[in-house]
Amino acid sequence: MDATISSFKGETGRDARRRIRAGTNLAPTSGMAPGYVQGNLAILPKALAADFARFCQLNPKPCPLLASSEPGDPRLPALGEDLDIRTDIPLYRVWKNGELVDEVRDLKGVWRDDLVSFVLGCSFSFEEALIENGLEIRHQTCNVNVPMYRTSIECKPSGSFHGPMVVSMRPFKPADAIRAVQVTTRFPSVHGAPVHLGKPELIGIKDIAKPDYGDAVPVRDDEFPVFWACGVTPQSVVATVKPEFCITHAPGYMLVTDLLNSQLAVL
Amino acid sequence: MDATISSFKGETGRDARRRIRAGTNLAPTSGMAPGYVQGNLAILPKALAADFARFCQLNPKPCPLLASSEPGDPRLPALGEDLDIRTDIPLYRVWKNGELVDEVRDLKGVWRDDLVSFVLGCSFSFEEALIENGLEIRHQTCNVNVPMYRTSIECKPSGSFHGPMVVSMRPFKPADAIRAVQVTTRFPSVHGAPVHLGKPELIGIKDIAKPDYGDAVPVRDDEFPVFWACGVTPQSVVATVKPEFCITHAPGYMLVTDLLNSQLAVL
Repeated sequence: MDATISSFKGETGRDARRRIRAGTNLAPTSGMAPGYVQGNLAILPKALAADFARFCQLNPKPCPLLASSEPGDPRLPALGEDLDIRTDIPLYRVWKNGELVDEVRDLKGVWRDDLVSFVLGCSFSFEEALIENGLEIRHQTCNVNVPMYRTSIECKPSGSFHGPMVVSMRPFKPADAIRAVQVTTRFPSVHGAPVHLGKPELIGIKDIAKPDYGDAVPVRDDEFPVFWACGVTPQSVVATVKPEFCITHAPGYMLVTDLLNSQLAVL
Repeated sequence: MDATISSFKGETGRDARRRIRAGTNLAPTSGMAPGYVQGNLAILPKALAADFARFCQLNPKPCPLLASSEPGDPRLPALGEDLDIRTDIPLYRVWKNGELVDEVRDLKGVWRDDLVSFVLGCSFSFEEALIENGLEIRHQTCNVNVPMYRTSIECKPSGSFHGPMVVSMRPFKPADAIRAVQVTTRFPSVHGAPVHLGKPELIGIKDIAKPDYGDAVPVRDDEFPVFWACGVTPQSVVATVKPEFCITHAPGYMLVTDLLNSQLAVL
């Protein structure tokens, strides 16, 4: 696999899923199907689904729900007519009682008739909008993963689901931070506006150079760290709640949908 | 004059102008005609009007032009059918060659047939929106004038008009600063989104406790100073340019119009 971003030019979400389904693309999905929405995945047994759905509804900034499935139904037609959640992501993680027990290329061996799929918006969509507005995404410049931090901001609990909000961080100069607030406000279904900026200690981040997930990036003297609610939050919550069974995407290996990022803009 | 804000409840812009025109209200206009747009005034000879109009067009954040008059015509029907700019502001300042030469209650003694009136949006409108969103306006809490600072941000010049942008400052906690960006973005014709936040030294402000105009307010450890382009900018520019003749409102004594603040929201 040696695909460059330019090789994906003109690719649709459906094109990307077909390659993934055929097993000819096992790379992270960043850069695939430019302009199309990619999503985070959480699959839970029906017994936990109502609580998790309400958790998303109570915490829309870290858990912006794009679609959920009927129990046992691997389809999500709202995100792609042909979409099959069992085969259309390059790499999945299988969790039992909160422990990672396997990474698999498809879900055919682990599928159950009581599973409900939840697809949540991801920051790729708003990063595309920031770049279109001429803003630099530092972790892309550095060619590393976005830095992410567990915060002291508690999510609103629902049933057994509870835990701290995880945030991603991108540094900006003040005027660019203001523009970034405006740009991302238009995309509430993919985390929306930042939840915090500057003063990381106020949200329980002790050392900006030591993210809990991803990689550190430099924050210059004339910049602020700007923090967005992060789709890693539900995975962090699932690790805390330890449901008997759960499937997620592997980090960086997202669900590519037929929705366009531009369709998610509310204004 | 001992009018409290509550005494203005239900008052329209036209009501306020009638009281002012009749000479029965000589107080600053803050709180009058709640919900109605108040504006900054600059009156210049026709020979300078084209350059000043272009200065506003080039610098819409500090100089958001709401309306301008025909030369010699004291009416501004776009802002009020009965409006007469010579009588409808409680207190005016008259400038000659950049020097303040008089403060007058009306313009009947100084009016000229070549004068063009410019009315610019003012922060009262977006402050009303911030308060409606549950945000605290510190200088109102402290019952002082908003602190204002000359910055190192140069306005774009037009003819002889040039000079630094003046900004007003309101402190907010980070999440409230983000909300304030969203709220004021809706009001581009009354200064719009902030131009800067935090790090005052980056825009040439040496000491936040020493504003160039207005009064200092406390900025707490968990807050940022948030800076908006300010309608004092054109007055500062006029003082630099020293036109042979100019009239402005006296600070705090604004033009009350028939426009509603809610009408200025673009979204």
